[in-house]
Amino acid sequence: MSPSRIVLMLVASAAAFAATAACADEQEDIDYRQHIMNTLGEQMAAIQQIVQRKAPADNLATHVQIVAVTAATAKAAFKSEVPGGRAKPDVWANWPDFSKRLDELVAATAAVAKSAKEGGVQGTAAKLETLKCKGCHDVYREEKK
Amino acid sequence: MSPSRIVLMLVASAAAFAATAACADEQEDIDYRQHIMNTLGEQMAAIQQIVQRKAPADNLATHVQIVAVTAATAKAAFKSEVPGGRAKPDVWANWPDFSKRLDELVAATAAVAKSAKEGGVQGTAAKLETLKCKGCHDVYREEKK
Repeated sequence: MSPSRIVLMLVASAAAFAATAACADEQEDIDYRQHIMNTLGEQMAAIQQIVQRKAPADNLATHVQIVAVTAATAKAAFKSEVPGGRAKPDVWANWPDFSKRLDELVAATAAVAKSAKEGGVQGTAAKLETLKCKGCHDVYREEKK
Repeated sequence: MSPSRIVLMLVASAAAFAATAACADEQEDIDYRQHIMNTLGEQMAAIQQIVQRKAPADNLATHVQIVAVTAATAKAAFKSEVPGGRAKPDVWANWPDFSKRLDELVAATAAVAKSAKEGGVQGTAAKLETLKCKGCHDVYREEKK
């Protein structure tokens, strides 16, 4: 085999390796943000059960606090522009809006967490209505296939 | 139809209704604790990614804090004796041990959360090793079917 052919093969292998590595990294980015969004989903579902009196009320304030703290981790998770999973490319095309909405989610959940600590289910149910995941999901999340 | 037959039918319907309601309640109990255990799983997976340098380190302390706070909600979720989901009946047969292990999880995660806040990934990775979900799952959780 000629030296130039060997060099060509090495270059091709290196390129293939780089491509695989990039894809693996991108999947990690997608997995990471999904861990965060799934956490929000699980906690919101637990809160929903408590509001409907289908789960013990003692944990309400803690669940809302978990939502607030988790929401604060989401921005870093979406920072790298890696479409995939259920994130629409608009997340990055409209980053100022998406990012502002995440900030608002953090502020809103923190406020509800405070009220849940003081007011229990009765005093919190109406405020929980302000935490609508749907508003953002309608714009930035793909429908489930 | 004789009055006694009508009464019998009413009693039978009431019993069937009560059974359905009980089952629905039991499913709510199972769902509720699964929301909590899934949250722990999602957050531990995020932490794992950070330790393996596959996700941004900024959120590490927050994720560990979420695990600690979530762990503290688990005991109330397992209180009603409702086998099902992946919980083995041993959860309730050995409640003092199961409950003690949950307390230990809360204490251990709170300690690691403190260290993550101060020491970052470097100072926390070894301590994270102490948070083994497997020890408890091997005893109290059914294998996935």
